[in-house]
Amino acid sequence: MRYELYYWPSIQGRGEFIRLALEEAAASYTDVVREDGISGMLDLIAGTSTDHPPFAPPILKAGKRVIAQTANILMFLGARHRLAPAGEDGRMWTHQLQLTMDDFLVEAHDVHHPLAKSLYYEEQRKEARRRAGDFVPERLPKFLDYIERVLQQNPSGGNHLVGARLTYADLSLFQHVEGLRYAFPNAMARLEPDYPLLVGLHARVANRPRIRAYAASDQRIPFNEDGIYRHYPELDV
Amino acid sequence: MRYELYYWPSIQGRGEFIRLALEEAAASYTDVVREDGISGMLDLIAGTSTDHPPFAPPILKAGKRVIAQTANILMFLGARHRLAPAGEDGRMWTHQLQLTMDDFLVEAHDVHHPLAKSLYYEEQRKEARRRAGDFVPERLPKFLDYIERVLQQNPSGGNHLVGARLTYADLSLFQHVEGLRYAFPNAMARLEPDYPLLVGLHARVANRPRIRAYAASDQRIPFNEDGIYRHYPELDV
Repeated sequence: MRYELYYWPSIQGRGEFIRLALEEAAASYTDVVREDGISGMLDLIAGTSTDHPPFAPPILKAGKRVIAQTANILMFLGARHRLAPAGEDGRMWTHQLQLTMDDFLVEAHDVHHPLAKSLYYEEQRKEARRRAGDFVPERLPKFLDYIERVLQQNPSGGNHLVGARLTYADLSLFQHVEGLRYAFPNAMARLEPDYPLLVGLHARVANRPRIRAYAASDQRIPFNEDGIYRHYPELDV
Repeated sequence: MRYELYYWPSIQGRGEFIRLALEEAAASYTDVVREDGISGMLDLIAGTSTDHPPFAPPILKAGKRVIAQTANILMFLGARHRLAPAGEDGRMWTHQLQLTMDDFLVEAHDVHHPLAKSLYYEEQRKEARRRAGDFVPERLPKFLDYIERVLQQNPSGGNHLVGARLTYADLSLFQHVEGLRYAFPNAMARLEPDYPLLVGLHARVANRPRIRAYAASDQRIPFNEDGIYRHYPELDV
């Protein structure tokens, strides 16, 4: 079966978490909007072709199934492609970590869009600076502290977030670190020495053959100022 | 087994979604912080007593298990107390709806806290008004439209979000409508006539014997201006 991924075609965004899992799994998939345009995605969101209408992309079609919400899709893929433990306890812990990272994603996005998604950055620039003044010194280290602690407390060692094998949570952490380095290079350069396990895990994922090949390919959309992680130097405080 | 719920003791917040599921299931549970103070919750968050340290409450202890993230806890309870379909398809669809509602919860919260959780409302009041100017006319109807459409397209009829039986997603929708009516009474009074299925489902949940008894009891913490849904008249535009 060939998966169909529906996501905005010009940003990494939330879709990138799904792409990374599909790439690591060497799963066969079509990035539909990039190949065939946006109409199929709009049909899915309008709910004309499914009883399970998604609120927003990313959306994964797996046979007749239509699945949305990043963490939900990853839980589905994790079970099918050995990217999560098979047991309920490990499966739920992996999911919990993903949900925590998803919460952080919203915080990172809202640094540059504190007032409304529907306004341009330039219309909320002053407010973005105030939000960055909380995010960078308070929320960002709180998130990094948490991840480092999860790695420290992993009874199987600090090479992975869950147990002794790669899970989709590791792939998602890699993506967050990529995004944070793009958006907040000065802050990350300052903070990273305090998080050796996190930095090590990022490097370990980056060096996985399929992830490395994907990251070097044209398939990987570069970060840009339309996505979730954006580089506005005045917010990198 | 008696569950232990750990959550802030003076607000409904995210913990209320768990309380409603436990109440509807007639599950035995202790609302630990309200009964015994906050130290147990802080120990769990500090990770001194678990390999699966939570980032934030709500946290559910089920025997030796420590589970966090609202949607993750509800998925766990849904499977054990028949508050979600047993099959994977229905289980994931219920979870997807919960995740979408959780996203909306953050948006509703950030109306009054657009800049930082660490600042008081009064320190971001002007920005909150600007955010409300987007949330109330744009995001709120978009969310209500979506829920109404899910109900309309449910092949089992519009009495429930998923299939023909109550799920935790219905309980969570009830809670959102309660919160929205508290925070935005004028906007909701204006909008609700357009959403008859949503309003009907809220009433159906409110009239379930266990929910009605719980809502009328001292156990239900009243909405207040420390919680997620807050009533600031200037934001109810």
